[in-house]
Amino acid sequence: MKLRKELIVSAIENGTVIDHIPSDSVFQVIKILNLEDCENQLLFGTNLDSKKYGKKGIIKLRDKFFKSGDINKIALAAPTATLIVIKDFQVIEKKQVKIPDSAVGIVKCFNPNCITNHEQITTRFKVLDKKNLKLLCHYCEKITDNNNIKYI
Amino acid sequence: MKLRKELIVSAIENGTVIDHIPSDSVFQVIKILNLEDCENQLLFGTNLDSKKYGKKGIIKLRDKFFKSGDINKIALAAPTATLIVIKDFQVIEKKQVKIPDSAVGIVKCFNPNCITNHEQITTRFKVLDKKNLKLLCHYCEKITDNNNIKYI
Repeated sequence: MKLRKELIVSAIENGTVIDHIPSDSVFQVIKILNLEDCENQLLFGTNLDSKKYGKKGIIKLRDKFFKSGDINKIALAAPTATLIVIKDFQVIEKKQVKIPDSAVGIVKCFNPNCITNHEQITTRFKVLDKKNLKLLCHYCEKITDNNNIKYI
Repeated sequence: MKLRKELIVSAIENGTVIDHIPSDSVFQVIKILNLEDCENQLLFGTNLDSKKYGKKGIIKLRDKFFKSGDINKIALAAPTATLIVIKDFQVIEKKQVKIPDSAVGIVKCFNPNCITNHEQITTRFKVLDKKNLKLLCHYCEKITDNNNIKYI
């Protein structure tokens, strides 16, 4: 069983592994990173056993590397995620994602009257609280939080 | 490399493997089978190398088994898919999916005036042509085909 679990993580020569994604956020992370349209080899799993979190998801993407700014977008949906950069089967970088100070074009404003829900305007929020996710809309100044967050 | 590829397919004790999914249909299959909300362990890959099709997708689902009627729903999006049933690490069944004679609640009617696009009515089509997918809407009698097919 151990061998199998290791292989799920390690069977990639060059690319990016995103580990420790909350199981119920895997499809949101896929959406945020636009992986549905990605032409690279993509492997992922959800509801895998995790010592730390009980259940977790993992995404492995061959020959693809992300900029910090891009990968941190997923921290809103998956604050526990770890980014692992692999070259020649070796882990060359491993870091936690960080919730950014602002969220541009990732989240919908929950306020139905907000202009971003009626016109083609990119949403823009200031992250007021990183722990209990609170996002202040740049346009209508309402606060979108964990209870009503939806991803674009 | 061979070892790794085999393990992608075989690392499941009990459950279902759906192999030979066209790479660009993997997320549609996930949607049709409603796997985003599934709590079983789920592994999948896209853009994997395939001798037969160039590129393919694969889905592995632990401890989950499908009825023929349910699995054949995916044949509209993934006509080349193979269903593999695994028990105790052994393949106990392997078969091609078959495009069904009717499609209920899977596909949207492309006709914007169709009643199914305005009221809460389950879509219902007769499959007129299985090769060049042509679906006759039970309600408006317009034909939805490969060029305008969208999944619910």
